[in-house]
Amino acid sequence: MSPATLYGLGVGPGDPELITLKTARILAGVDAVAYVSAGGRPSRARAIADAHIRPGVSEIELVLPMAVDPASAAPAYAAGADRIVAILDAGRDVAVLCEGDPLLYGSFARLLAHLDDRIGGRHRVQIVPGITSISAAIASSGHPLVGRLEPMTIVPAPLACADLDAHLGQGDAVVVMKLGRHLERVRAALARAGRLTGALYVEAASTEDERVLPLSELASAPAPYFSLVLVPPVRGAR
Amino acid sequence: MSPATLYGLGVGPGDPELITLKTARILAGVDAVAYVSAGGRPSRARAIADAHIRPGVSEIELVLPMAVDPASAAPAYAAGADRIVAILDAGRDVAVLCEGDPLLYGSFARLLAHLDDRIGGRHRVQIVPGITSISAAIASSGHPLVGRLEPMTIVPAPLACADLDAHLGQGDAVVVMKLGRHLERVRAALARAGRLTGALYVEAASTEDERVLPLSELASAPAPYFSLVLVPPVRGAR
Repeated sequence: MSPATLYGLGVGPGDPELITLKTARILAGVDAVAYVSAGGRPSRARAIADAHIRPGVSEIELVLPMAVDPASAAPAYAAGADRIVAILDAGRDVAVLCEGDPLLYGSFARLLAHLDDRIGGRHRVQIVPGITSISAAIASSGHPLVGRLEPMTIVPAPLACADLDAHLGQGDAVVVMKLGRHLERVRAALARAGRLTGALYVEAASTEDERVLPLSELASAPAPYFSLVLVPPVRGAR
Repeated sequence: MSPATLYGLGVGPGDPELITLKTARILAGVDAVAYVSAGGRPSRARAIADAHIRPGVSEIELVLPMAVDPASAAPAYAAGADRIVAILDAGRDVAVLCEGDPLLYGSFARLLAHLDDRIGGRHRVQIVPGITSISAAIASSGHPLVGRLEPMTIVPAPLACADLDAHLGQGDAVVVMKLGRHLERVRAALARAGRLTGALYVEAASTEDERVLPLSELASAPAPYFSLVLVPPVRGAR
């Protein structure tokens, strides 16, 4: 069996122009692409990379169930990994399209765990980093979130309230990712920490649907999954 | 006076293929490029973007002094900002080349403060995000640093020892940036926190000079400025 290559390709935050030259070049050469979709909606990663996917390549869609419990997605990841490894074992390269960066808070990390077990060193794995929604959101805000000596913590919104409070209580800059149905819980935690003023809400950064506004002015509703909050540091806290 | 555009263009961590299509397209159209160099060495951002800089465009090099005190660079930033704004005021677009991402721990944030004062709303400012050395380093490690519910803190190495200790004492994943002459201080802080085992040293991620090895195996010497340490979370800490 000749070794093939599995690529984890970052396609960036949403603007198709924020794909790298490397991801575009690799996509022009692969035999198959794979991507995740969830909740019955088409894959955002597939849509971002559309112009670079050659006609006629095999497409593998991992359809994740619409469910809060992440364990419920395990069979979909396992079945997708089986299909991807079958193509690799036939000597053909496969590119997994990943929104943002492949290894930062995306589904690829989870898929990779399933793939590593099955590949067992028979094939090459190459990860191509991508622009994160964090970089895109800060760029859209127009100003740096932190100075050169200021730490910054990235916090996933689904964290427990006590953990959110602990991170917000420290005074460092915080980026709260993946707001979705956690918006009001995060907003309440920011209010408890006295940090709601100054917190910036960014939705769909880099796309035509982008919105940037103070979190305090955002209407109460579930936020899209691809939204985040930028919380500047409490200056003078140290 | 007709408004021009100042671009802050992320050129990524080092591999010229990790430039985005957007940065490449904008570079093909601007009249002038600007970049920072320091310590008598040529600009890394200029080198990364070289293939996309049209022959004959104006080049503005901000030569920063080799000095530990950041205040000593203020005159160089001010003089560079004056030159950039003169070009904008002549109706010509200028692109500032930024290693990694323009607004994350780079010199552009500092230059932008000088530019904002001088531009005063007369010209457009557009920031194009770039791939960070953090994403590149994690990609080179081959594995995610954090799971979907695990926070991650980015800590600049020049922080005071007590602040390093406070961040390392929390159990979350930590990325220590800009090691340089702080390598041994950071290594000692990791040892005090009991987190030296598992910490990964990454130098020049994505380039031909890339090195990835356990920090505990790295020879004692000043590390390059463009090196960092990935510290996995203490699992089970929460």
